Amino acid sequence: MEKKILSSSEIDRIRTSFAAQSLMRTFGAELGEIAPGRVEITAPILPGSRQQHGFAHAGLTFSLGDSAAGYAALSMMPEGAEVMSVEVKINLLAPAKGSRLIAIGKVVKPGRRLVVVSAEVFAEEAGTRKLVALLQGTMIPV
Amino acid sequence: MEKKILSSSEIDRIRTSFAAQSLMRTFGAELGEIAPGRVEITAPILPGSRQQHGFAHAGLTFSLGDSAAGYAALSMMPEGAEVMSVEVKINLLAPAKGSRLIAIGKVVKPGRRLVVVSAEVFAEEAGTRKLVALLQGTMIPV
Amino acid sequence: MEKKILSSSEIDRIRTSFAAQSLMRTFGAELGEIAPGRVEITAPILPGSRQQHGFAHAGLTFSLGDSAAGYAALSMMPEGAEVMSVEVKINLLAPAKGSRLIAIGKVVKPGRRLVVVSAEVFAEEAGTRKLVALLQGTMIPV
Amino acid sequence: MEKKILSSSEIDRIRTSFAAQSLMRTFGAELGEIAPGRVEITAPILPGSRQQHGFAHAGLTFSLGDSAAGYAALSMMPEGAEVMSVEVKINLLAPAKGSRLIAIGKVVKPGRRLVVVSAEVFAEEAGTRKLVALLQGTMIPV
Repeated sequence: MEKKILSSSEIDRIRTSFAAQSLMRTFGAELGEIAPGRVEITAPILPGSRQQHGFAHAGLTFSLGDSAAGYAALSMMPEGAEVMSVEVKINLLAPAKGSRLIAIGKVVKPGRRLVVVSAEVFAEEAGTRKLVALLQGTMIPV
Repeated sequence: MEKKILSSSEIDRIRTSFAAQSLMRTFGAELGEIAPGRVEITAPILPGSRQQHGFAHAGLTFSLGDSAAGYAALSMMPEGAEVMSVEVKINLLAPAKGSRLIAIGKVVKPGRRLVVVSAEVFAEEAGTRKLVALLQGTMIPV
Repeated sequence: MEKKILSSSEIDRIRTSFAAQSLMRTFGAELGEIAPGRVEITAPILPGSRQQHGFAHAGLTFSLGDSAAGYAALSMMPEGAEVMSVEVKINLLAPAKGSRLIAIGKVVKPGRRLVVVSAEVFAEEAGTRKLVALLQGTMIPV
Repeated sequence: MEKKILSSSEIDRIRTSFAAQSLMRTFGAELGEIAPGRVEITAPILPGSRQQHGFAHAGLTFSLGDSAAGYAALSMMPEGAEVMSVEVKINLLAPAKGSRLIAIGKVVKPGRRLVVVSAEVFAEEAGTRKLVALLQGTMIPV
């Protein structure tokens, strides 16, 4: 990961793509810190994003982790490229209780043909963060 | 899988839990056929459920597949039990284009301590179904 | 999967590659039926292939499943191509007791850039087969 | 992970179980550092452990990573417990070239019913270590 800083056009590419994902708007999600090979996405646990016990649905947790990992991959790709998820594995470590989720996606292994990524998802409750999910996956440039 | 038919209270347990998942309402999702070890969930690809190219977001695909697999597991569990996803792996096979998704969750291996599940997710476009994702995972009774 | 039958050079490609995998010889593994998108590998559970309770080690189960899935992918690829595992997920369903394992690898979704595969691994004891593992993964032509 | 040091009987439990895994002997594998929630296993890439290009077979890489992760889980479990792999996902990041592999298994999330683990596998060539695989999985006490 020799690249140390993202250009403003590389950051714009991520912001533009994120803004075009209507599911992220539905979830009230926002991009956080964007760095080479590392992207953060946060979202409140909205009344409409829950499972049967009122916690964040695994689908919300997955969506944020998958998108954060995908944009982490995109941050390492050449101009003009886009990214798609090939496969993602999620381990759900604890119920996602709290007011919001923070997903941190990271590039594990950049590559021309495939990018291996991971993501951690934390639930924030009363100011404390708890790790609730771990994702490992593969992204492909398209 | 010796059980051949679900009692109405077993079906109600699934319907009640599904109705309590607010994310499923947000997605406009509906339960389809419910059988022992096999549950179907369908959802339109709503304007608010999309990725940057207008196709279904992987998060929608995952959510439906995960829930269908979870309820397939629940259909095999003793009364009073609930179910949680331990881990799920999704392979995304093709862009999820079309008007709606159909997720079919199945029990691969029932068990007292863990239930191994799979799910197929199809995208329906102009009456044809295309397999767009395959999930394999583990559910735990709680 | 329009191809209905493998040519003898396509079958030879698989046999030659398999024969060059020294781990398969160490395990006493043999190729079984080879068909387009479907390859079988069997191996005895040798005294040197076991875990601490005398059953087949998960590493043996994985190796056979991964190789069967890889050769199933290779059976669908253009001449001259070889195949590598990108990622594989295995669910271990039951202890692998018995005298031998049978792995059946299948192509779920062929593709020019990536091939999605699955494999089932059975343990054979006193003539009965029991499903002991399920694999889902991604192969890449190289 | 409140436990800071392993007792000699806890270390013996791991050594005894490892010694009983005949596959580890077949691979020439050895236990390295053992700490609470962290276990190392190394093995030469023997002539009989290879794939068709002479590199370590994915089955060797998996076996070492899976066992290292399993023993990391065992190191956190109460006396008398044993551990089995429920499911493991491996991403193969690079060809495993070199003279030996080093697998480092770690507990990500301990638990009474399930333990979430990860493992990194490195290939050592001429004194340099390269990350060749990443595993994420679930172990169960038995």
